[in-house]
Amino acid sequence: MVRAMKNVTPSPDKPDFDTLFNQRLEALFRWRRDVRRFKTDPIPDDLQKQLLKRAILAPSVGNSQPWRFVVVDDKTRRKKIRDDFESCNKDALKDYSGEKANLYARLKLSGLDQAPVQLAVYSDHGSGRGKGLGQKTMPEMLDYSVVAAINTLWLAARAEGVGMGWVSILHPETVNAILDVPENWRLVAYLCLGYPVEEHDDPELVRYGWEDRAPFSDFILER
Amino acid sequence: MVRAMKNVTPSPDKPDFDTLFNQRLEALFRWRRDVRRFKTDPIPDDLQKQLLKRAILAPSVGNSQPWRFVVVDDKTRRKKIRDDFESCNKDALKDYSGEKANLYARLKLSGLDQAPVQLAVYSDHGSGRGKGLGQKTMPEMLDYSVVAAINTLWLAARAEGVGMGWVSILHPETVNAILDVPENWRLVAYLCLGYPVEEHDDPELVRYGWEDRAPFSDFILER
Repeated sequence: MVRAMKNVTPSPDKPDFDTLFNQRLEALFRWRRDVRRFKTDPIPDDLQKQLLKRAILAPSVGNSQPWRFVVVDDKTRRKKIRDDFESCNKDALKDYSGEKANLYARLKLSGLDQAPVQLAVYSDHGSGRGKGLGQKTMPEMLDYSVVAAINTLWLAARAEGVGMGWVSILHPETVNAILDVPENWRLVAYLCLGYPVEEHDDPELVRYGWEDRAPFSDFILER
Repeated sequence: MVRAMKNVTPSPDKPDFDTLFNQRLEALFRWRRDVRRFKTDPIPDDLQKQLLKRAILAPSVGNSQPWRFVVVDDKTRRKKIRDDFESCNKDALKDYSGEKANLYARLKLSGLDQAPVQLAVYSDHGSGRGKGLGQKTMPEMLDYSVVAAINTLWLAARAEGVGMGWVSILHPETVNAILDVPENWRLVAYLCLGYPVEEHDDPELVRYGWEDRAPFSDFILER
């Protein structure tokens, strides 16, 4: 049904985000990290649910809401995912040589061994929700919407003291088979969540000398 | 140079994000909207810069920092972008019929006519930063990192009272030509920023009957 096109009166309880909130939000951006060292303490079920409910407040193209969260609890499936990571990681190491290979081999690139919560996050290419709006010339928008939900989840988690790590050293087709998901779902991320062993405001890859932060001016072009 | 692998002692000024902050963060997620109706008032330069500096606190695969922000100020280029939007939008309308076409034609799908700040956001596939880490089996991670920065910018902007809208009804190749960007840059988003005319905590596409929000249970699968 086509509803009235006139905008409804905005809710009177529109929040004011003051200077203090903005400072803490910036601190949240700084302290959000890709966590790979987790305590094994569980995350309470209601907190898990709350975090996912916040994640789906993310924007999505045409309000398509393509995000699908697969909660991976089964031990056998988890082991198979870990095996795939180890195989991919060994393979990736071959791309480096000398000092860089030496460093790569010593980096900890996933928390799959300890993280109490593991989520495979998919983009559903078959739901039809959003009716294609905004996807015609940029079909990748569907997957980008899922990334927005993942980024939102990351911030929501960190604000509640929960760390998150994104594992991309996996074969998507292998993960799909292990998790037996519908055919038209596309893997966007495999996430580890748990309480972090350490807290930092700089990336581990900076601390360990893999890649430094670049200056702001490198990112800006004027046209 | 390979640095010491031992983690440095975490900074003692690790912030506590209390219940009040978490409530306001959830409110920020709710009130972040895809804005298409902007006032023409300018955004102060220092605020623009501050928002972009917050955006690049986003995570990136292998610390690759692939985000490139093209600040589009030139009137001729802006007009060409708007023309491309109008052509794409007219074309997209043909995909709908009856009541849906009627509704699509009346939706306002961009703020290109008023937004004082316009940014084309690219993913640089040629910088080599991050040295390929985490991209081997999922090369799309580079573009996903740019989406994380865009989502971070969206939240940072809204918290400072600035609205943002993501325009995807554009031909990427046309935009690349208009903006004359390096060949190995991939367009991820074209963004409009400005002070919003109205504030809402629900999507315009819900209010206008294009697509409703789906129930939380639709998004969760257990494995």
